[in-house]
Amino acid sequence: MHENPFAVVAKPGDKVADLSTPRPIIDEDRLAANIARVQAYMDEHRLNFRPHIKTHKIPALAAEQVAAGAKGINCQKISEAEVFATAGFEDILITFNILGSQKLERLAALNERISGLKVVADSAATVDGLSEYFATHKPLEVLVECDTGGGRCGVQTPTEAIALAGRINDAEGLTFVGLLNYPKPGAAAEVQAFLSETLSSLKAAGIDCPIVSNGGSPSLFEAHLVTAATEHRAGTYIYNDRSMVRAGHCSEDECAMYVLATVVSRPTADRAVIDAGSKALTSDLLGFSDYGTVISYPDAVITGLSEEHGVIDLSKCTGRRPEIGEKIRIIPNHTCVVSNLFDTMVFHRDGVVTRVEEVAARGLVW
Amino acid sequence: MHENPFAVVAKPGDKVADLSTPRPIIDEDRLAANIARVQAYMDEHRLNFRPHIKTHKIPALAAEQVAAGAKGINCQKISEAEVFATAGFEDILITFNILGSQKLERLAALNERISGLKVVADSAATVDGLSEYFATHKPLEVLVECDTGGGRCGVQTPTEAIALAGRINDAEGLTFVGLLNYPKPGAAAEVQAFLSETLSSLKAAGIDCPIVSNGGSPSLFEAHLVTAATEHRAGTYIYNDRSMVRAGHCSEDECAMYVLATVVSRPTADRAVIDAGSKALTSDLLGFSDYGTVISYPDAVITGLSEEHGVIDLSKCTGRRPEIGEKIRIIPNHTCVVSNLFDTMVFHRDGVVTRVEEVAARGLVW
Repeated sequence: MHENPFAVVAKPGDKVADLSTPRPIIDEDRLAANIARVQAYMDEHRLNFRPHIKTHKIPALAAEQVAAGAKGINCQKISEAEVFATAGFEDILITFNILGSQKLERLAALNERISGLKVVADSAATVDGLSEYFATHKPLEVLVECDTGGGRCGVQTPTEAIALAGRINDAEGLTFVGLLNYPKPGAAAEVQAFLSETLSSLKAAGIDCPIVSNGGSPSLFEAHLVTAATEHRAGTYIYNDRSMVRAGHCSEDECAMYVLATVVSRPTADRAVIDAGSKALTSDLLGFSDYGTVISYPDAVITGLSEEHGVIDLSKCTGRRPEIGEKIRIIPNHTCVVSNLFDTMVFHRDGVVTRVEEVAARGLVW
Repeated sequence: MHENPFAVVAKPGDKVADLSTPRPIIDEDRLAANIARVQAYMDEHRLNFRPHIKTHKIPALAAEQVAAGAKGINCQKISEAEVFATAGFEDILITFNILGSQKLERLAALNERISGLKVVADSAATVDGLSEYFATHKPLEVLVECDTGGGRCGVQTPTEAIALAGRINDAEGLTFVGLLNYPKPGAAAEVQAFLSETLSSLKAAGIDCPIVSNGGSPSLFEAHLVTAATEHRAGTYIYNDRSMVRAGHCSEDECAMYVLATVVSRPTADRAVIDAGSKALTSDLLGFSDYGTVISYPDAVITGLSEEHGVIDLSKCTGRRPEIGEKIRIIPNHTCVVSNLFDTMVFHRDGVVTRVEEVAARGLVW
């Protein structure tokens, strides 16, 4: 699908500076350093590490994460897990409540194909739906998702967690294998309290709980404070982005992705317009009031995006201002959603393209 | 690319209520009515109508727009125009300053393939770049883009517009064919003043200007107030969305697209979580503080999106609240960006799938 025979395809050896814009570009050395740095931290603290592949959706990158020491991967939907299972991954955790006959059928088929599939549940309805399917299929491993302050999915109290763990173990075709929480940055103590209380009660009830899966990228280097956890999940760290710099997780020099864009208009002295809009950078603000950091022009502010245009306010730039035709590099607010917009991702070292990977798990309906 | 043999593909005859979620769905009758309604307005006011295909990126829909009376189409990048040229469209206006050797080469190749290619320019740099290429190729038709208050690209004054029109006509390989403005809603008088002053001066200078292209969806039904215009461009009207309802352009019942989502969690009495996040609805707020209108639950507020989850605040719902497993329908803030996330689009009539179209022009790097 989406073949366009007229498109110019980047290839190894091409100069990044010559590539058509807009497109995200990944620095190989920063990518490798980001993988190594976080794995070293996890190893130091004897935490299993489970990278979330939603950030890149590229099997080759997950293979690099596993080669560095990661134990399995984290997917957010069945289609992602299907693509990664086809690529050879066996230990896949899908952190989603899976409901509905079409998804359950696909989940059962996926479970037959790989050895280490795991999903989460936070309600009796989800557990009962899973059991209805898996009673007559290969049994499925299920974790209870806990809301430790993240405010999304998850049971609200340790009491609810224990009841649901029991329901899973009582359900035909399901095995309770652990607890999982959706992260809230900077709340290690809160997370630890919820999880350790739940673990104590599970132990008292004689329910085995081999996995305690904590997560999150911005607070990744606080993972060791949650001593109840056996593993940590994170995605964004592999590329990093402006939100990770703000969180103090990394410096700008550790951001492996930038979006290459061309200045296509300078209608006024204070305004530049680039060819990267919301269909390249996305509208994700993540609390910022603008749409990315312009490398080499720190005082330039991307004030607005339409679909294929970005408007940059140059009024605070004291030195040189970008000219029409000039290519600029932007660190996006959020890399995971940028990945999701492009069918291929270009990698480089020192400005020369090293490889072009298909973003294999994007654009797939569940 | 992106083939997933395990994916369940929707097909004609399927019930929409049974489809896997999340995914956008288009109502055939509303689609046809939206096309007919706007074309009738343009016909009544003797304005040529040029639909912008960025909204749907599907050649079959553009064919319906042209069959209804549209004169040519509007694309925002070369890759879109390439796909639509392959599908048989000849009169294509690309409303973008095209710069850089790769894009210019592709533009020249595209110009050889179709009879009615047109682009815009708002600077000497763009004009000179085009001329450098087209001097030795089939000549290209160029419009001058004017900033009539939209604050994006465009020359700032009629004087600049006239100078640039002259430069185009003086440039080898280029022909000046018109003026174009990027719309600013509710500013018909301002647009009219800029365009009519420019037209008078062009006439005085003996420069022919056959096309005056005005645009915009929210202010579409003010198009007749800009009597200087010969044509109008608009995209969103074909699907409509929450922003178009707010603008007074249409009612909720005229929104042809909704995003079908499933409630996957009800962690608290006041919170529902659905399987549509920013990778289904996008983060486009367009001035709203939340992420769409939940049909049948008017008091439900989609307060936050992560990538694959949407969090809904139900605290203001006085009646029934959606339950786990229930499918809900959401009118997105902005349809054009939702289209861009999905490889295929499902159409229905009375809840039964009529066809599935490939979103052929998405995901293509320029």
